[in-house]
Amino acid sequence: MTKISLQAIAHVRSTRKVIKDDEWGGVESEIVLVDDLSSDTLEGIESFSHLEVIFYFDKVEDQKIVMGSAHPRGNRDYPKMGIFAQRKKSRPNKLGLTVVKLLKRVDNTITVQGLDAIDGTPVLDIKPVMKEFLPREEIRQPDWAGDLMKNYW
Amino acid sequence: MTKISLQAIAHVRSTRKVIKDDEWGGVESEIVLVDDLSSDTLEGIESFSHLEVIFYFDKVEDQKIVMGSAHPRGNRDYPKMGIFAQRKKSRPNKLGLTVVKLLKRVDNTITVQGLDAIDGTPVLDIKPVMKEFLPREEIRQPDWAGDLMKNYW
Repeated sequence: MTKISLQAIAHVRSTRKVIKDDEWGGVESEIVLVDDLSSDTLEGIESFSHLEVIFYFDKVEDQKIVMGSAHPRGNRDYPKMGIFAQRKKSRPNKLGLTVVKLLKRVDNTITVQGLDAIDGTPVLDIKPVMKEFLPREEIRQPDWAGDLMKNYW
Repeated sequence: MTKISLQAIAHVRSTRKVIKDDEWGGVESEIVLVDDLSSDTLEGIESFSHLEVIFYFDKVEDQKIVMGSAHPRGNRDYPKMGIFAQRKKSRPNKLGLTVVKLLKRVDNTITVQGLDAIDGTPVLDIKPVMKEFLPREEIRQPDWAGDLMKNYW
């Protein structure tokens, strides 16, 4: 298997220091570029209202990664789902991905709302949300997903 | 800088073998899990209509990566934008991210529509699109983005 080697482009600064399942909606956090990257990489980002942030769940222990299927949140009322049919953090490659609202940018730091990543989390990419990249058809999802998400934001 | 080491979880099989800017909307492709991963990792994925696919632009040469800002697609009618204010492939960490429509799943292979990645591209993660993870406020974006996207799909 080819290994792919990445580096953090930024880190999260958040008042939330411990992992928590729910209530992320009001959380404001900063994303601060690593010293190697110029603030030019963020030029014009304020012209977008929302960003996609790809980050790395660095606190997940390798032996906890689900390599098959499991009940979401361990809840047996939910069907067993493959790890790629869930957004659970204990997943191969430990990648997180969330749409956040951009509040402001000052130099090498952006302030965002709704980033579900704790303080210190390495960020691997930031992309502007363009409406053309949103789903172009109606979304269908199983009932458990809505139930699981009811206190998330 | 801490290095983060990832592995492909799947590869793209597509009739599109060469990189092209536009007309991705009708492209159907397959995502085939690597041999190390069980098809259990995809269990129940058919209950979602759309997936987010994170992939690796492995054909991008390191020396072409934009480490500051540039005119999107080299078009001087568009403003200079930081690389994290664009979705250009020649970016730090070379990560691609697209929402695709799931057409079907058979064993370790899913068939999707609208994946803008060529044949052989390594896939790093697949996540189900849940409507609760879409932007929760209205999207604002600059005019150049809509112009650039007009023939994309």
